[in-house]
Amino acid sequence: MAPSTPRLVVPIDLKKKPWEQERPLHNRWHPDIPPVCEVRDGEFFRVEMVDWTGGSIKDDGSAIDVKGIDLSAVHYLSGPIRVVDKDGIAAKPGDLLVVEICNLGPLPGDEWGFTAIFDRENGGGFLTDHFPCASKAIWYFEGIYAYSPHIPGVRFPGLTHPGIIGTAPSMELLNIWNERERDVEENGLKSLKLCEVLHSRPLANLPSPKGCHLGKIQKDTPEWERIAGEAARTIPGRENGGNCDIKNLSRGSKIYLPVFVDGANFSTGDMHFSQGDGEISFCGAIEMSGFLELKCEIIRGGMKEYLTPMGPTPLHVNPIFEIGPVEPRFSEWLVFEGISVDEGGRQHFLDASVAYKRATLNAIDYLSKFGYSKEQMYLLLSCCPCEGRISGIVDSPNAMATIAIPTAIFDQDIRPKTDKVPLGPRVIRTPDVLKCTYDGNLPITKNLATMT
Amino acid sequence: MAPSTPRLVVPIDLKKKPWEQERPLHNRWHPDIPPVCEVRDGEFFRVEMVDWTGGSIKDDGSAIDVKGIDLSAVHYLSGPIRVVDKDGIAAKPGDLLVVEICNLGPLPGDEWGFTAIFDRENGGGFLTDHFPCASKAIWYFEGIYAYSPHIPGVRFPGLTHPGIIGTAPSMELLNIWNERERDVEENGLKSLKLCEVLHSRPLANLPSPKGCHLGKIQKDTPEWERIAGEAARTIPGRENGGNCDIKNLSRGSKIYLPVFVDGANFSTGDMHFSQGDGEISFCGAIEMSGFLELKCEIIRGGMKEYLTPMGPTPLHVNPIFEIGPVEPRFSEWLVFEGISVDEGGRQHFLDASVAYKRATLNAIDYLSKFGYSKEQMYLLLSCCPCEGRISGIVDSPNAMATIAIPTAIFDQDIRPKTDKVPLGPRVIRTPDVLKCTYDGNLPITKNLATMT
Amino acid sequence: MAPSTPRLVVPIDLKKKPWEQERPLHNRWHPDIPPVCEVRDGEFFRVEMVDWTGGSIKDDGSAIDVKGIDLSAVHYLSGPIRVVDKDGIAAKPGDLLVVEICNLGPLPGDEWGFTAIFDRENGGGFLTDHFPCASKAIWYFEGIYAYSPHIPGVRFPGLTHPGIIGTAPSMELLNIWNERERDVEENGLKSLKLCEVLHSRPLANLPSPKGCHLGKIQKDTPEWERIAGEAARTIPGRENGGNCDIKNLSRGSKIYLPVFVDGANFSTGDMHFSQGDGEISFCGAIEMSGFLELKCEIIRGGMKEYLTPMGPTPLHVNPIFEIGPVEPRFSEWLVFEGISVDEGGRQHFLDASVAYKRATLNAIDYLSKFGYSKEQMYLLLSCCPCEGRISGIVDSPNAMATIAIPTAIFDQDIRPKTDKVPLGPRVIRTPDVLKCTYDGNLPITKNLATMT
Amino acid sequence: MAPSTPRLVVPIDLKKKPWEQERPLHNRWHPDIPPVCEVRDGEFFRVEMVDWTGGSIKDDGSAIDVKGIDLSAVHYLSGPIRVVDKDGIAAKPGDLLVVEICNLGPLPGDEWGFTAIFDRENGGGFLTDHFPCASKAIWYFEGIYAYSPHIPGVRFPGLTHPGIIGTAPSMELLNIWNERERDVEENGLKSLKLCEVLHSRPLANLPSPKGCHLGKIQKDTPEWERIAGEAARTIPGRENGGNCDIKNLSRGSKIYLPVFVDGANFSTGDMHFSQGDGEISFCGAIEMSGFLELKCEIIRGGMKEYLTPMGPTPLHVNPIFEIGPVEPRFSEWLVFEGISVDEGGRQHFLDASVAYKRATLNAIDYLSKFGYSKEQMYLLLSCCPCEGRISGIVDSPNAMATIAIPTAIFDQDIRPKTDKVPLGPRVIRTPDVLKCTYDGNLPITKNLATMT
Repeated sequence: MAPSTPRLVVPIDLKKKPWEQERPLHNRWHPDIPPVCEVRDGEFFRVEMVDWTGGSIKDDGSAIDVKGIDLSAVHYLSGPIRVVDKDGIAAKPGDLLVVEICNLGPLPGDEWGFTAIFDRENGGGFLTDHFPCASKAIWYFEGIYAYSPHIPGVRFPGLTHPGIIGTAPSMELLNIWNERERDVEENGLKSLKLCEVLHSRPLANLPSPKGCHLGKIQKDTPEWERIAGEAARTIPGRENGGNCDIKNLSRGSKIYLPVFVDGANFSTGDMHFSQGDGEISFCGAIEMSGFLELKCEIIRGGMKEYLTPMGPTPLHVNPIFEIGPVEPRFSEWLVFEGISVDEGGRQHFLDASVAYKRATLNAIDYLSKFGYSKEQMYLLLSCCPCEGRISGIVDSPNAMATIAIPTAIFDQDIRPKTDKVPLGPRVIRTPDVLKCTYDGNLPITKNLATMT
Repeated sequence: MAPSTPRLVVPIDLKKKPWEQERPLHNRWHPDIPPVCEVRDGEFFRVEMVDWTGGSIKDDGSAIDVKGIDLSAVHYLSGPIRVVDKDGIAAKPGDLLVVEICNLGPLPGDEWGFTAIFDRENGGGFLTDHFPCASKAIWYFEGIYAYSPHIPGVRFPGLTHPGIIGTAPSMELLNIWNERERDVEENGLKSLKLCEVLHSRPLANLPSPKGCHLGKIQKDTPEWERIAGEAARTIPGRENGGNCDIKNLSRGSKIYLPVFVDGANFSTGDMHFSQGDGEISFCGAIEMSGFLELKCEIIRGGMKEYLTPMGPTPLHVNPIFEIGPVEPRFSEWLVFEGISVDEGGRQHFLDASVAYKRATLNAIDYLSKFGYSKEQMYLLLSCCPCEGRISGIVDSPNAMATIAIPTAIFDQDIRPKTDKVPLGPRVIRTPDVLKCTYDGNLPITKNLATMT
Repeated sequence: MAPSTPRLVVPIDLKKKPWEQERPLHNRWHPDIPPVCEVRDGEFFRVEMVDWTGGSIKDDGSAIDVKGIDLSAVHYLSGPIRVVDKDGIAAKPGDLLVVEICNLGPLPGDEWGFTAIFDRENGGGFLTDHFPCASKAIWYFEGIYAYSPHIPGVRFPGLTHPGIIGTAPSMELLNIWNERERDVEENGLKSLKLCEVLHSRPLANLPSPKGCHLGKIQKDTPEWERIAGEAARTIPGRENGGNCDIKNLSRGSKIYLPVFVDGANFSTGDMHFSQGDGEISFCGAIEMSGFLELKCEIIRGGMKEYLTPMGPTPLHVNPIFEIGPVEPRFSEWLVFEGISVDEGGRQHFLDASVAYKRATLNAIDYLSKFGYSKEQMYLLLSCCPCEGRISGIVDSPNAMATIAIPTAIFDQDIRPKTDKVPLGPRVIRTPDVLKCTYDGNLPITKNLATMT
Repeated sequence: MAPSTPRLVVPIDLKKKPWEQERPLHNRWHPDIPPVCEVRDGEFFRVEMVDWTGGSIKDDGSAIDVKGIDLSAVHYLSGPIRVVDKDGIAAKPGDLLVVEICNLGPLPGDEWGFTAIFDRENGGGFLTDHFPCASKAIWYFEGIYAYSPHIPGVRFPGLTHPGIIGTAPSMELLNIWNERERDVEENGLKSLKLCEVLHSRPLANLPSPKGCHLGKIQKDTPEWERIAGEAARTIPGRENGGNCDIKNLSRGSKIYLPVFVDGANFSTGDMHFSQGDGEISFCGAIEMSGFLELKCEIIRGGMKEYLTPMGPTPLHVNPIFEIGPVEPRFSEWLVFEGISVDEGGRQHFLDASVAYKRATLNAIDYLSKFGYSKEQMYLLLSCCPCEGRISGIVDSPNAMATIAIPTAIFDQDIRPKTDKVPLGPRVIRTPDVLKCTYDGNLPITKNLATMT
């Protein structure tokens, strides 16, 4: 074996459940979840992971599994991984942990993924008021490329990345999280008048023992009960990194993470073969199992040196990262604009979320002219390497957001035709997906559910 | 003269005021502002423009001009330009106007620009609660590059673009604008509780005869009075394009604009030598005078064919564009994350504006460690080619935004040092800017004002 | 005038001949050609230039001007430009002169260029045994783009650059040049057996008073006679830079030139709107007049520090350069291979010139299937931004060269069709060029000459 | 197993010799080497391969293995692979075979490679007259990156590719090869006077039973004897592709290969983790074992449709390829020029090989100023992603070649310093390599050989 073969520190056996793995997975953030392995500064090692749902979604043409998914149990994370320096001394709170992603990809024999629209009753997504019903597209991989039988005529190289990478929080930080998220959960509806129109989504995801897995900690023990009652959910990204869903955290990236507990105890999961900025359909990346090949370094005292003060606390937080050198290269992009006026014509004040919503709706409307259903394009913009930008955020009252789509991912020319020839009737690309999308008011999945 | 020399349709004489130009400028959107020239489908032509303030800001080291600027008179636009097809028949409502930016740049002899922080009392910017005082940096150009005596150690190639390009609205569209913006102006404060903390900025900029210029229409005539009372301000981008401030509308871009009036009557202005995504300090680009070399095409009936229905109206709106092939190329980026928790620790719900605000504050805090004041870095992030992304917009309750900064614009290595050597005392790069920024509670410009 | 407006140190009046200019041009390399202007280290200045032929080629559809061109008078260079440091002390032999190309482009009002195939009897080009007759294509510019009525269906952004930039040689260096070039001229045919098949081109271009222009030195004076008899021709690139024809010396490039005489005395000319690697048709770039905006720096003693020893001499020579950040961006390339077996089937030994010749012939053959004549494609590969690579140079007996063509420059998809549909009859794109190319054995230019 | 898991058609067991593999390897080109497997048009499959020497070079610090290597047995190729269409009908002579490289990389557990300088007595390389002694650098991989203990301070992402991919020749084509290569071998020295100075390398590599392996054909049978006496060596690239050593044939590339025999029977091998243009030190890439994941398509009759006539034969030949979308991205390059004047000062006529030789020597000389030995830099330029261009090939008598080196591969700034500070004494980076390079006249490997 070559000296540069990575040491496998978290193996995954896809035939086993997440909690049955040799190094059992966890799905919460808490300082007391014990590490499952230890790596040394400079060591080259490999971490495997399940998909974020732990295998709940099937490689088939029905969205019934998406419709009924239990969100209390996501995301299954590999780790925590304890980091020590070359002398064996652990990373300390206040240090900066540098994680370099040397390589990543799908697990051999499991080269497929899924993109889903969540049902409005199950949390929905960014455009849930337009696409209330569950839907799903399956993607197959051919090396660097993905294609889907459910969205024909599209093929693109992956900008593969872990949706989640983060360090264990301290109790101090965890308490801050729980407090502020409880506040929005309890008081949110009163103050968030404007958003009511837009969203009927969960305001926060508070700690809950339901579905909780804590790695090596035995279920239903007192320790488990205590931690499960306090531990933060993995849904949102936070000051420790976490579910940041940054599509550019790919091969060659370096991430600088704050260390809050002895050993840093970082975890990772939620591998995406590809994702568009915003991951708009919620389960919007091409979700898959996979592996990471990593190297870590410890910068002693680096949090104060490099990160930003959190405010009322002495903590310095928020990851920084460098982008790697092998991102897919596209030279031609078609770009759609959105301003912060909602679909009902109501003016919002410099609201980039509303502006981005309009930009994505404009793009979906446009692309559906090329033979696709809008559900297909919602799924596609969630997972293809499109770029979502905050272009203008100061010109009251309109924020301006854009979404840029690389034209090369389509097998047809999707640019407007300046030769003044009307687009005319186009080939319909949708039949293959009828079984997993919705047609009008009748959710297809219900039929499928009945049929199954 | 070569057949491919562009025809100059809007000349600018920098010694004259905007309203004294041969083809007088205008600073409002209204269907009845008459065109100042006509171009033909396929013709190659040149449009010159003043800077957005019409020459109000001086090439000096004092921000007093920024502090006192009269915002009622911006932005000065070149046009309207009427477009006809090869047979001389005008573009019609419902057509799509394709504008290709073949080239652009500063006006010969006027190769400089400015970036400013607006005073809180004069409207402020994205971070006005952190940077309440007026400030200014002057930029000089060396061909494709800009450098500033006020922000030493930085030099970068421009991704030059017009901040504003848009077609004249129809009365129908103008009425929609005025109605919805009046609504936010009048009812905004009640519903926008959360934003109170963040902003004390004007909620909208409603029509006002003060400072109004309408091109060829004689001031104080009844027609002028009528139009000035109805015409939309140019501050926000809207469905006609307008002040979209999209930094990628540069050389080689093609913009597809909706046509609402006979002849399309498009106008352009607010040239930026360079701008960061968001243009965060409001007068945040490197503002300058300049020229555009353009070609137009008319796609008959293209609005319905290619654009998005506006909703309650029969209009299809919102520009689409393609990105050009000569954007500056950077391979290394340092990226900062922000989540939708504000500086006071309050949790917001999937608010990309808050998340982007935190990302920019994190970046400013970090970069100021390299010998700069925070004002300098606020100015820099406003105008350098940084990319602002909506990375995650579905993981309740946190939106995740990122700002990516090309490391090559600095003459020092701004990446975290993994060799564990503390950054130590750094060269202070700030002295040159003291005169135009604020020091603590004492606004320097006051002194400068006194001195002047 | 802004402090960053470049100072015009070599103005061009296109209505005057090269030798009538205010700062008269020269077309030879010699240490005693006096400088026409002086610039200071760090100064931002502008140099204008005529096209390489000094206006001999017309913007028309006949190649008769190409056929008859007098090559003894090229290239007309702007300069020499003397460089001094901030204290006014001149650059010295042994220093390194850094020239930064801050900007460049065509001269206003003269936005067009030409690409020509030279007649075999007039020197020919790389493929002169295949294309023996003079031909010409005119290009018009639309900002960053060029298009030609003679090669329809093609449009591309320019990677504009000066074909020639170099410092004045010392007498020592000049003598070395003259000696070695005389050797190849006199003894070349004996030893160059293999090349006979390939080329019937001039082996060298030795000093000659015919057509000689020496700037400020009065013609036919004894000094002129002496210099004209010694001065090196500008055709080949040499250790001082010179006619290096490197297409990447564009905006933002930095060139490190050796200094051989007091003041460095650098000259520049032969502006190319665009050129392919190799400039294969000899007059193969899009040749034009133009301007450069430059900055210089002097690195004292830098030749020995940074350059390579020349061998028997104490000189350190050969320029180094850095590539600029705004080269046109293409993501899709079609690549053709060539090996060092000539068209007659004869095996050559690791000869990259033969390999590149075959690669270009393969590309021309392929592209001509898309409705073009081979002359059109020879002209196109000479001037479009194609990349010519030495891919393998060690695998005896075959060198392997490749030429990569960006597919986006065509308005049709030129990739092989994998759907197995034969290409079938294609639109013929050639009629427009008949008048300036050759048809079979009958050179059209002869007819044109007769007609004119 | 997911439907998109590639089918493994050529497995490699690294513990076995090339000829002991389940699908035995071959090292010659001949129409009668029988295929070892069959793939179908559109199928996604995997091919594994040994390194080009079949494991002769060890992961150690001695170059003794390089010095003594038997070149008669290289390169070991996987295949031939027979290709049939969806109906099971084989590719036919005249068809075009499209091979898409969907993915590739090192074999798990064998993540290392080597770059070597061949001894002059064993064939040498491009610069063998400057570097006559065997040398070796070992490279270890960390995911996308390679680093070498023998060339410290350098790390770069791989542009991984198979050095060899080609189809089996027909007898007609094979005869042409043998004839022309015999001609150069026998008559070369007479006509190649100029090259004598440059090279003392084998002029060709003619068929030879020594070291020959023919896959499934039993050694020393009459059939083996016949084929071994006729079969072409794999050293040079030829009209069938073969050892083209094109560094851009990487992930996402599509190669269009001519088909000369029933089934196409293509073979591949000689995997390179990375290679510089020219592969100048001969064993100059980072050589390794590896895998390819491929898809094939057949374009019926495509040779005549798309390729170039070979001349006296009815064949249409020479592969075409498209470049993939995930090449490593570098924005800053330092470029060295070379002209066709050799190191002795002798002028050559438009000889791109001489020009490229000088460019590489200039680059090696320059880079060695930064603490490296010249051997280290010769090895580095052979294997790092540097670009070798034919910049000018028409300006008699000088060809102009350039080599561009991405500056980001070094951990120090290798650009010339314009602040006029002499480089001064630099850290010496060479000690680690002393054991495998040569010091003056004393080849270190001899010592090592003695010691071993």
